[in-house]
Amino acid sequence: MVDIQTQHTQAARGEAVRDADRPRDSLIATFGPDKPLKLDAGVLLSPFQIAYTTYGALNADKSNAVMVCHALTGDQYVAQVHPVTGKNGWWETLIGPGKPLDPARYFIICTNVLGGCMGSSGPASTNPATGQPWGLEFPVVTVRDMVRAQAMLVDHLGIETLFAVVGGSMGGMQVLQWAASYPERVFAAMPIACATRHSAQNIAFHEVGRQAIMADPEWHGGRYHLEGGNPRRGLGVARMGAHITYLSDAALHRKFGRRFQDRENPTFSFDADFEVESYLRHQGSTFVERFDANSYLYLTRAMDYFDLAADAGGTLANAFKGTQTRFCVISFTSDWLFPTSESRATVHALNAASARVSFAEIVTDKGHDAFLLDEPEMFGIVRGFLEGARKARGLDGRK
Amino acid sequence: MVDIQTQHTQAARGEAVRDADRPRDSLIATFGPDKPLKLDAGVLLSPFQIAYTTYGALNADKSNAVMVCHALTGDQYVAQVHPVTGKNGWWETLIGPGKPLDPARYFIICTNVLGGCMGSSGPASTNPATGQPWGLEFPVVTVRDMVRAQAMLVDHLGIETLFAVVGGSMGGMQVLQWAASYPERVFAAMPIACATRHSAQNIAFHEVGRQAIMADPEWHGGRYHLEGGNPRRGLGVARMGAHITYLSDAALHRKFGRRFQDRENPTFSFDADFEVESYLRHQGSTFVERFDANSYLYLTRAMDYFDLAADAGGTLANAFKGTQTRFCVISFTSDWLFPTSESRATVHALNAASARVSFAEIVTDKGHDAFLLDEPEMFGIVRGFLEGARKARGLDGRK
Repeated sequence: MVDIQTQHTQAARGEAVRDADRPRDSLIATFGPDKPLKLDAGVLLSPFQIAYTTYGALNADKSNAVMVCHALTGDQYVAQVHPVTGKNGWWETLIGPGKPLDPARYFIICTNVLGGCMGSSGPASTNPATGQPWGLEFPVVTVRDMVRAQAMLVDHLGIETLFAVVGGSMGGMQVLQWAASYPERVFAAMPIACATRHSAQNIAFHEVGRQAIMADPEWHGGRYHLEGGNPRRGLGVARMGAHITYLSDAALHRKFGRRFQDRENPTFSFDADFEVESYLRHQGSTFVERFDANSYLYLTRAMDYFDLAADAGGTLANAFKGTQTRFCVISFTSDWLFPTSESRATVHALNAASARVSFAEIVTDKGHDAFLLDEPEMFGIVRGFLEGARKARGLDGRK
Repeated sequence: MVDIQTQHTQAARGEAVRDADRPRDSLIATFGPDKPLKLDAGVLLSPFQIAYTTYGALNADKSNAVMVCHALTGDQYVAQVHPVTGKNGWWETLIGPGKPLDPARYFIICTNVLGGCMGSSGPASTNPATGQPWGLEFPVVTVRDMVRAQAMLVDHLGIETLFAVVGGSMGGMQVLQWAASYPERVFAAMPIACATRHSAQNIAFHEVGRQAIMADPEWHGGRYHLEGGNPRRGLGVARMGAHITYLSDAALHRKFGRRFQDRENPTFSFDADFEVESYLRHQGSTFVERFDANSYLYLTRAMDYFDLAADAGGTLANAFKGTQTRFCVISFTSDWLFPTSESRATVHALNAASARVSFAEIVTDKGHDAFLLDEPEMFGIVRGFLEGARKARGLDGRK
């Protein structure tokens, strides 16, 4: 019996493709009944699938693999055109020919996280037991569960040790979790714009987003896939609120200020008078075209639950005890969602665990989303750190 | 014909009182057809009414009047039990016997702002032309309109000059507007935790709240008073999101951290696992008991439109040109909604206008809401500033 299958899906011609089960332009690994995923919630998930993309080739001794982890609303389309939006990959600033993560040198893997909606098992996926979308019957997952699933994929690909794990925001949480859960399998780790636990304020923002979704009558208690409808307005509101937290006061001021949209004077109405209002509405309305509302609930919940210190008996340094991984921690001055103080706390814990760690705070006014944008200083740091790690790993002499 | 009436309303026994028209335990001034309010939107509002409370007695030469201006979700119940919630007045920390604003010394006036929902004309009020609630037929109002209405009330009370105008947040905007619109009528002004214009980020947060309300199907395009229903969930979500901005990351961490609500471990569900979630949900659900959703739209819009520099031809200092008013500007270190930089800009403009101005930044981790809380340093500053102004005004020798 074939318990694990990897298939390359393509857009079916002339028929709608349900991306939650069969995402276009993506690989899928299916884990059968003999490979259940043991979740933190105490549930065995089986069967399940992980959708992923790869770029570049694995070298002979399988030592050049890099796992790239996506943020809350990202997916596996990290360095290729997104099949739904038609936009470029979300981290093509960092990944590509001549870029710090060059597919000519690395075998780059990016999964859709467990709980996501672009092909990895999640609330929008078909529950194999019922043939209907899971909805809220899908078990609540954690960042640790996401990483467990990624580790099973890495096993499936026959890779023992990842050369590097890289990610920002929720992706950075996965990087830290990789280093904590599988220290011997991570040679180098780059957690960017993240923290070892979600703050009360961040939980609060997530809760507002969830309430916006659950307040939408089209949510139907999470059963909208079955009952028809789609809580687009609620999800749009959630996205609008969250999007503010990804930027900065300064960036919003620079981009929009108090400029009116297509007019000189206020309309004295509730239309989108200001450019920043139009921008936010656009962010909300485009997001709902590509994201599942229940998935948003699950992934925000996973971030809320993230707390490496609690998992390590209350002492953060114990999460990294004895680690041989090399760390490069990056933060951004204007990031108020994951401020530098959080990264500093991570670095202190790594120091306390006698880890190899370098730390860079990058001066920018672009806020949390800076890690996705054109930030030459960040690219330089990633490049330099990876070069050093290549030498330490002896990668350059290998084929 | 009596064009202006002041009446003291009381809870009608055995029948529901519609607070939007006849608020309990409040005074009301009604302005008839010969006293229209000319709004910035270019509309004459007439008739209209302003609900207000007073504390203390006006002295013989009417020189001891203090106007206290409320914030977005405040009302005229500044120093007395609120008729809906049963809670103490919202600024009893500052106002009362022996406190910096002592009714034994001052005649304190607090109005419900124009556009509000506790008795001043607003979208929840009955439109006299139709006998039905205004809803979105009510004209959009500005902070300047609110202050115009207050000035008409002050005229009605026979007061030429206010000894002081005091307020925080949207109340502080009214203080600044008073000083700009009626410099000769304001002896002393205390704008607290505010700005001379609403920032792009703050407009963005307001827009999310409005979208949450307007996404609620019970909003019915603003006609819920007529069609039945009440967009409680949307308004609750708006309040939850806004409430986060009134606090600070540090305050939330101190109050709630990542503590679970009534349990040791996560439930792996979307219940309110964390204390901060329960707290926010409570904030949302109690708010909707006392506040009108359309009013929330109007008042956030008024704040968005606030821009003293734009009103003064683009140069902020011109808004205060030739002013004789004494200013005391106060900000709080952890206020990220109206950060100290905004107050500094106000002070710079006042300096450029050669105004008398003192400025205090108070160190606290309580965020924007600090102005409503027990902040002894703020009380000391208010007391000291008012004492100085009393001397300058020669108030102490008067009856």
